[in-house]
Amino acid sequence: MLSAIEKAGILIEALPYIKRFYGKTIVIKYGGHAMIDQGLKEAVAKDLILMRFVGINPVLVHGGGPEISSMLHRLGKQSSFVQGLRVTDRETLEVVEMVMGKINQDIVTLINRHGGKAVGLSGKDGFLVEAQKKLLNGGDDVDLGYVGEVGRINPEIIHTVTDSGYIPVISPIGAGPEGEGYNINADIVAGELAAALGADKLILLTDVEGIYRRIDDKNSLISLVRLDEIPGLIDQKVISGGMIPKVECCVKAITGGTGSAHIIDGRTPHSILLEVFTDQGIGTMVVP
Amino acid sequence: MLSAIEKAGILIEALPYIKRFYGKTIVIKYGGHAMIDQGLKEAVAKDLILMRFVGINPVLVHGGGPEISSMLHRLGKQSSFVQGLRVTDRETLEVVEMVMGKINQDIVTLINRHGGKAVGLSGKDGFLVEAQKKLLNGGDDVDLGYVGEVGRINPEIIHTVTDSGYIPVISPIGAGPEGEGYNINADIVAGELAAALGADKLILLTDVEGIYRRIDDKNSLISLVRLDEIPGLIDQKVISGGMIPKVECCVKAITGGTGSAHIIDGRTPHSILLEVFTDQGIGTMVVP
Amino acid sequence: MLSAIEKAGILIEALPYIKRFYGKTIVIKYGGHAMIDQGLKEAVAKDLILMRFVGINPVLVHGGGPEISSMLHRLGKQSSFVQGLRVTDRETLEVVEMVMGKINQDIVTLINRHGGKAVGLSGKDGFLVEAQKKLLNGGDDVDLGYVGEVGRINPEIIHTVTDSGYIPVISPIGAGPEGEGYNINADIVAGELAAALGADKLILLTDVEGIYRRIDDKNSLISLVRLDEIPGLIDQKVISGGMIPKVECCVKAITGGTGSAHIIDGRTPHSILLEVFTDQGIGTMVVP
Amino acid sequence: MLSAIEKAGILIEALPYIKRFYGKTIVIKYGGHAMIDQGLKEAVAKDLILMRFVGINPVLVHGGGPEISSMLHRLGKQSSFVQGLRVTDRETLEVVEMVMGKINQDIVTLINRHGGKAVGLSGKDGFLVEAQKKLLNGGDDVDLGYVGEVGRINPEIIHTVTDSGYIPVISPIGAGPEGEGYNINADIVAGELAAALGADKLILLTDVEGIYRRIDDKNSLISLVRLDEIPGLIDQKVISGGMIPKVECCVKAITGGTGSAHIIDGRTPHSILLEVFTDQGIGTMVVP
Amino acid sequence: MLSAIEKAGILIEALPYIKRFYGKTIVIKYGGHAMIDQGLKEAVAKDLILMRFVGINPVLVHGGGPEISSMLHRLGKQSSFVQGLRVTDRETLEVVEMVMGKINQDIVTLINRHGGKAVGLSGKDGFLVEAQKKLLNGGDDVDLGYVGEVGRINPEIIHTVTDSGYIPVISPIGAGPEGEGYNINADIVAGELAAALGADKLILLTDVEGIYRRIDDKNSLISLVRLDEIPGLIDQKVISGGMIPKVECCVKAITGGTGSAHIIDGRTPHSILLEVFTDQGIGTMVVP
Amino acid sequence: MLSAIEKAGILIEALPYIKRFYGKTIVIKYGGHAMIDQGLKEAVAKDLILMRFVGINPVLVHGGGPEISSMLHRLGKQSSFVQGLRVTDRETLEVVEMVMGKINQDIVTLINRHGGKAVGLSGKDGFLVEAQKKLLNGGDDVDLGYVGEVGRINPEIIHTVTDSGYIPVISPIGAGPEGEGYNINADIVAGELAAALGADKLILLTDVEGIYRRIDDKNSLISLVRLDEIPGLIDQKVISGGMIPKVECCVKAITGGTGSAHIIDGRTPHSILLEVFTDQGIGTMVVP
Repeated sequence: MLSAIEKAGILIEALPYIKRFYGKTIVIKYGGHAMIDQGLKEAVAKDLILMRFVGINPVLVHGGGPEISSMLHRLGKQSSFVQGLRVTDRETLEVVEMVMGKINQDIVTLINRHGGKAVGLSGKDGFLVEAQKKLLNGGDDVDLGYVGEVGRINPEIIHTVTDSGYIPVISPIGAGPEGEGYNINADIVAGELAAALGADKLILLTDVEGIYRRIDDKNSLISLVRLDEIPGLIDQKVISGGMIPKVECCVKAITGGTGSAHIIDGRTPHSILLEVFTDQGIGTMVVP
Repeated sequence: MLSAIEKAGILIEALPYIKRFYGKTIVIKYGGHAMIDQGLKEAVAKDLILMRFVGINPVLVHGGGPEISSMLHRLGKQSSFVQGLRVTDRETLEVVEMVMGKINQDIVTLINRHGGKAVGLSGKDGFLVEAQKKLLNGGDDVDLGYVGEVGRINPEIIHTVTDSGYIPVISPIGAGPEGEGYNINADIVAGELAAALGADKLILLTDVEGIYRRIDDKNSLISLVRLDEIPGLIDQKVISGGMIPKVECCVKAITGGTGSAHIIDGRTPHSILLEVFTDQGIGTMVVP
Repeated sequence: MLSAIEKAGILIEALPYIKRFYGKTIVIKYGGHAMIDQGLKEAVAKDLILMRFVGINPVLVHGGGPEISSMLHRLGKQSSFVQGLRVTDRETLEVVEMVMGKINQDIVTLINRHGGKAVGLSGKDGFLVEAQKKLLNGGDDVDLGYVGEVGRINPEIIHTVTDSGYIPVISPIGAGPEGEGYNINADIVAGELAAALGADKLILLTDVEGIYRRIDDKNSLISLVRLDEIPGLIDQKVISGGMIPKVECCVKAITGGTGSAHIIDGRTPHSILLEVFTDQGIGTMVVP
Repeated sequence: MLSAIEKAGILIEALPYIKRFYGKTIVIKYGGHAMIDQGLKEAVAKDLILMRFVGINPVLVHGGGPEISSMLHRLGKQSSFVQGLRVTDRETLEVVEMVMGKINQDIVTLINRHGGKAVGLSGKDGFLVEAQKKLLNGGDDVDLGYVGEVGRINPEIIHTVTDSGYIPVISPIGAGPEGEGYNINADIVAGELAAALGADKLILLTDVEGIYRRIDDKNSLISLVRLDEIPGLIDQKVISGGMIPKVECCVKAITGGTGSAHIIDGRTPHSILLEVFTDQGIGTMVVP
Repeated sequence: MLSAIEKAGILIEALPYIKRFYGKTIVIKYGGHAMIDQGLKEAVAKDLILMRFVGINPVLVHGGGPEISSMLHRLGKQSSFVQGLRVTDRETLEVVEMVMGKINQDIVTLINRHGGKAVGLSGKDGFLVEAQKKLLNGGDDVDLGYVGEVGRINPEIIHTVTDSGYIPVISPIGAGPEGEGYNINADIVAGELAAALGADKLILLTDVEGIYRRIDDKNSLISLVRLDEIPGLIDQKVISGGMIPKVECCVKAITGGTGSAHIIDGRTPHSILLEVFTDQGIGTMVVP
Repeated sequence: MLSAIEKAGILIEALPYIKRFYGKTIVIKYGGHAMIDQGLKEAVAKDLILMRFVGINPVLVHGGGPEISSMLHRLGKQSSFVQGLRVTDRETLEVVEMVMGKINQDIVTLINRHGGKAVGLSGKDGFLVEAQKKLLNGGDDVDLGYVGEVGRINPEIIHTVTDSGYIPVISPIGAGPEGEGYNINADIVAGELAAALGADKLILLTDVEGIYRRIDDKNSLISLVRLDEIPGLIDQKVISGGMIPKVECCVKAITGGTGSAHIIDGRTPHSILLEVFTDQGIGTMVVP
C-alpha cells in the first residue's frame, strides 16, 4: 500500500512527459481486446480524459470488432472474404454503418460518464474522410463492394471540436463521391488522420506486445524501428501477416509528418498512459 | 416558363424574411413522408443549406421512421406497445440506436453532397440530452423500458458546431444517468431544444396540413393558435389523438421562449422555405 | 401568378450562386439610366441589400450623371470639353464635388430606407483614392484642370466599413497631393478598386446590353471575351467609341486579379442579381 | 526663443491631462471664425490629430457657415427666416446638403493632409441621426420645411470608424422617416451626439470668449456654471439671445451623461488644446 | 519498486482532483523549512509546475526567512521587536527589500530551471499591493516604522502574467502612498491576494502539521474547522500564539470568497500536491 | 513666462514625432548621473510615461551605479578589477543582485507614483536573458567569476507586459545554464534587447554630450555616425576608452535591425524627450 507521499512522487515523475506533449495531438487506433474487456474499456476512457486535462489533444479512431459479424449472423447475412477483406454489398454496408455507429456511441458515453467531453463522428460528418472504392491489385475480377480507401482528409471538424475541449471519437466510415459510405480499415484511417493533423504520435492498440524479432521468443521484442529498416524486416519475415498493414499505417503517418508511431499491447491496462508518460515506453516504436 | 427577370423579382421578395431571421436559430423536427420520398428529402436538404447561407442557424432533429420496425422485424424481434409507445428492452434499444445512427448519417451525407456542412449528433454526444426513464401515469405496473424523457439539455456542443458553420443533425437518443441510452420522441426533443437554444421558431414537419377545426373539412385549417386557446381546443376535440403531443411540444417550446411554433405539411416540397420566407406562412402557427 | 411553391423553387435555384460568391467582394459601377429611373434605383438598392445578406460584400461606385451639367447651367457656368472630358476649373470642381456628394447621400438613403446599412465615402475619406492630374497625350497645350487619374488606392476604410456590415457607396473624387480634389471617371475608379480589393467580379451598369459584334444587329451580343481577344476587337472596331474606356477598366481590373468583369444593361430591373445569381449571366463578360 | 529643454518641459506639463482623457470621447462643434480663417482651420486640424495620437477619440460636428447663403444667392434663391431659422424648401435643402457635403470633405482633406485619418459622415450614413420635422411652438401656421430635430442617434457607425483609428467629421443633416433630409442646427447635433456617445466633454467653438456676467465687461467672464444656476442666469438675461440655444445644447449633453460642456472662443488658435490640456481651461464650462 | 502499470494507476487516481481544480486559482504562502531545505525547495517548484500544466493557476507568496536577520547582522544592524514585529527603520527596510528581492529571484530561477515559466513580482510592481503603516493597538508610543498593512490589492498584473502562462512569485513588500516600501507579513499578503483573486484555495506552508486539539498529542490534529468554530477554539487556547495570525489570514481569505484555506506541513515533500490531489488532504482545513 | 497659447503651439510641434514613433519600441539604457539626481530621476520617469501615453513602448534597462560598491564596502568585501570589470565571486554576485533588485524597485515605484504602470524584471524572469560566463581574450588565467555575456534573449515576457500597458524596467542580471546569476554590463543588455525586440531606437543615457571629434573641443560634437565610419574613428582614437563598449552596443543593436542608436547626455533634464520629440535630436546618433 502506497503512502500519499509516494503517490505524489509518482505524479511528479510524469512531469517531463506532460511538458513534452502539452498542446500536442495524439491519434489512437482503438481495437482488439481493449474494446471488449470492461476494465480495459474504462481504463482507456480514463487515459483519454487524463491526457485531455494535461493539455494533450487525443483523437480516437475505433474499429468494428466482433459485433459486426454477430449482427450479420443474426440477420442471416453471409460474408465472403478476399485477401482478408470482407466483400461488402450494400446491405452489408448498412449493417457495418449501424454497428459502427452503436460502438461509437458506447465509447462516447463511456468517456462522458467518467467526466470527459466526447463527441462521436464518422468520416461522413463534415466530409471528414473522403473515400474511394478499394481496387485489389491483380484482382480485377473481384469486386469488394463498399470497401474503401482514404482519398482526402478534411480535418476542419476535428479542430472545431477539439478547440472546444471535446475528445473526438471517430468511426472508420468514409464518404464516397456520390455520398455512399465506404467501410475502411480503422488502422488506415488512424494513420491518415495522424498525417493530416500533424500529430505528434500515432498509437495502435493491438493484442500483441509489439514486433518480435523471433516470433516464438517473448524476449525478442523490438523496441525501436527506423523507417529504413522496415523493408529488410519484411524481407526477413520479422514483420509478416497482419502486422504488415499495421506497419504500413505507421509508415504512412510518419512520412506524413507524425513524430513517432507505436504498436502497443492494448491488453495491458492504461497502456496508452504507459506509452505517453513513462520513459521506456512500451511496445514497438517506429521513428523516421 | 419564367424569365430571369421574374426570378430575380422573386429573390427580392424574400428579402424581408432574410432580414428578419438573420442570425436566428430555427429548430426543425424532421419526420414522416419528407424522410421517405427522395425528392422531398433533397428539398429539405437544400432548404437547410439555403437557410444557413442567408445567415440562419437551422438545427435538425429527426425521428426514426419505418426503418426501426423493419429492422426489428428482420431480427425476429416482437414489440408490444402501451399507450402508443413501444416497450423498449435493451435489445430493442440497441436496434433503435443503430437505425437512428444510420438515418442520421444518411441525412448528414445528403446535406454535405448538396454543398452544405452537416455534422451528426445524438443526445449522447457531449451529453447534449440528459434523459430519464419515462414513467406512465397510472401505469405503475407497466415498464416501458428504455423509453425516456428529457431531463436537461446541455446545448454547448450545438453552439460549437454552428459557430463553425455546420448544420447539426440530431437523433433523439438521450443519455441516461448510468450512460444507458433512452429512446425519446423526436417532437419532444425538438421542442426542448428550441426552448434551450432560445430558438426563434420551432417547425414540426408532419404528414398533415396543420390543425383543422373540423377534421373532415379541408377548408377549416386553423392558421393561428394562441397558447391560451389550446386547452379549449383540446376540450372541443379539435386537437386530438396524435396531434396532442405535437401541440404539447409547441407549448413547451413557446413557454421556454421560442417565438413561434409551426405544424406544417412536410409532403409539400420546400415547405420549410415556404414557412420561413413567405408572408402567409403555411400550416398552423402557435404563438404566445 | 406564381404559387408559393414555385417561388420556393426559384430561391433554391439561386443556391449554387450564393455558395459560390459567399464572402466574396463585388465592385459595381453604378450609372446611366439605372441612376435616374425610380423603379430601377430601388431595384439596385434591393439587389445590394440581398447580396449583403447572403454573405457577399458589394462595393458601389457611382458616377455623376446629368445633375452636374444641370447645376453648372443653373450657376451660369459654361464648360468646354476636350476629347470628351470636361475641362474642370476650380469653380467647376466645387460644383462637381457638391453634386457628387448629394448623389452619394441619396443612394445611401435609398439603401438604408430599404433595410440595408450604407455609408457614403469619397476618395478623400481616409485617403481612399490618391489622385494625380490627368495629362492628355500629345495635348501639351491643353490643361484639363482638376480631371484626375488614380494614383494609389488605400482600401483600409473600405475594409473598416464592410467588416462592420456596411455597404460602401463611393463617389469618384480623388485626393490630390496638396489636398485638392480631382474628378475621376467612375468606371476607372471602379476598375482600380476591384483590382485593389481583389474583387471576384467587377460589374459595370451601362445603358447598352453589352458589346455587339455588329453594332446594328441586336442578336450579335458577345457573351464572353478573353483578355487576349480585346486588341483584335478594337482593331476591328467591334469595340469602339465610349465602349473603349469601359473595356479598359475591365482589363485593368482583371490584370489586377479580379475574376471577371461584366458590362451589363442597367436598364433591366435587377440586372445585378441576374448577373450574379443566374447561370447564363447577362451582358458581356471579360475573363482572363 | 525657447530652448529645446524648455519645450520638453512644456510637453511634460501636458502629461496629467493626457492621462486624464486617455480613451475618452470629446465631441467638438466646429463653426464660426475657426472655419473661415486658414490659420485657425489648420490649428483645429492639428489639435484633432494630436488628441487622437494621445489616445483621445475626437468627434467633430461642423456647421454650414456663410457658404450656404452664398450658394443660395448665386442660384438666385431667396430665403425667409422665422425665429432665426431659415425656411427650407426642397430646393433649399438640396443646396444645404450639397454645400454641407463640400465643407465636410474640405475638413476631412485638411486633417488627412496633416497626417491624420479622417472620414466624413452625415446623419444619413448608417442612419446616424434620425430626424423629424421641427415644429415651432405657437407657430402652427408657419411651415419651416426641412428644418429638423434629432429623433434618435444610432452611434454604431461612429464606433466603427473610431475603433479603426479614424476621426469622424459629421455634417448636421438628419435622415427623415421617408429618407428625406433635414437640416439640423449643428450645436444640437453635437449635444445629442455627446449624450449618445457618453462623451467626456462637449466643446462648442464660438466667436465669443464665453458667457459674460455683464455683457460689456470683458473681465466678467464666467468660468464655471452649474446646471442649476442656468435658469437664474437666463432670468437675469446673463444668458440671452444666441447664447440660449448653445447653453441648451450643453444642458442636453450633461443631462445625458457628458462630464462637462464648454463654450470657448474658436478665434484663439489651438483653443481646443488649451481647453483640454491646460489647468485653467478657457471659456465657460458647464458642469452637472 | 513500483511497476509502470502501478504508476499509471496512480496518475489515474489524480484525475478527479485535476478535473475539480481545472482553471482555478490557488494561492500558496511559501515559507519556513520548505524554503531552506534544497530537496523541499525543488519539490515545491515541481508541484507548482505540475499544477500549472494541469490547468491550475498557482500564485506563490514567499516570506523572508532567516536571510534577513543574517544580512542585518552582517551589516552590524540591531533590530528591536515589539509584539513579535521587527521595528523597521529606513535602513532596515532597504535590507529587507534587497533580501526579499534576492529570495524572489532564487525561487523564480528554481522554477524556470525545472521547466516552468515564473516571473518575480513585488507589491510595488504595477501597484499590486497598496500598503499603509501598521499601527499597534494600544501602542501609541511605539513606531514600528516601515511595517505595513495591506490597503488595496490591484490584481491586474497577476492576471497579465498568468494569462500568458507564467507562475507569479510575489514578495510581500507593499507600496506606500508616497512610494515608500512597507514590509508586510507574507501570510497576510497571501490571504488578501486569495480574497482579491477569488482563489479556490489558500494554502499556508508551515513547519507544523496543522492545528492540534491538544498541543502535546500528535494524534489530535484537527482536520476541519468551520469559520464559526474559530472564536471558541481561540477561547479554549487550542488556537494560540503564532497560529492565531495564520488562522486570521485563513478567515480573511474565506470571508473574501476563497473556497477553503489550509494550514499544512511544508516539511513533507510535495505537501502541496498531497493537499490538492488526494482525497483526505493533509493538515487543517478551514471552511466557511 | 509662456502664455497658454504658446504652450499649445509647442505641443503641436511635437506632432510629427508622435506620429513617427507611434507603436514603436524604444530601448533606453538608464545610468550615470540621471540615476542619482532626484530631479533628473523624476524627469526620466515622466519622459517614459509620456512616451507610453502617446503610443510608444519604452523599455528601460538600468545599471547598478555606486550603490553596489557602497554595499560591498559596508559588508567589508573587497573587489579586484580586471580590464575594468569587477571580479565577481558568489558573495559579490549576491550583493550585486540584491542591490540591482532594490534599484529596480525604486525606479518602478517612481514611475508608478507619477501615474505610469511599471513592472520590474530581471533577466531571470521568464528566462528573459540567458547568460554565459564571460571569458577574457588572452586572459586565460583570469577568472572573472559571475560576469556574464548575453547568450539568448527570450523577449516573450516583455511583450506580455507591454501588451497590457506596462513599462518594463529591467535589471541586467542574466540567467546561467545552471540557474546561477550573471552580472552583465547594462549597455550590452540594452543593445541586445534592442536587437531582439526590433526596436526603432536604442538610447544610451550617459554623462557626456556624445562623441567629440576633438576631445577637448566642446564644439566638435559629432551628430551623426554611419556604421562604416566607426572603425576609422576608433583607429583615429576619436572613439576611445569607455566610449568603445558603448559604441559597440550601438553597432550590435543596429546590425540586429534597430533603426538608430543614440549616445546622449543624461545630465540634461528630459534628454530622452529631446532626442525623440525634437528635430535636431541631441547627442551622437549612430545609423546603418
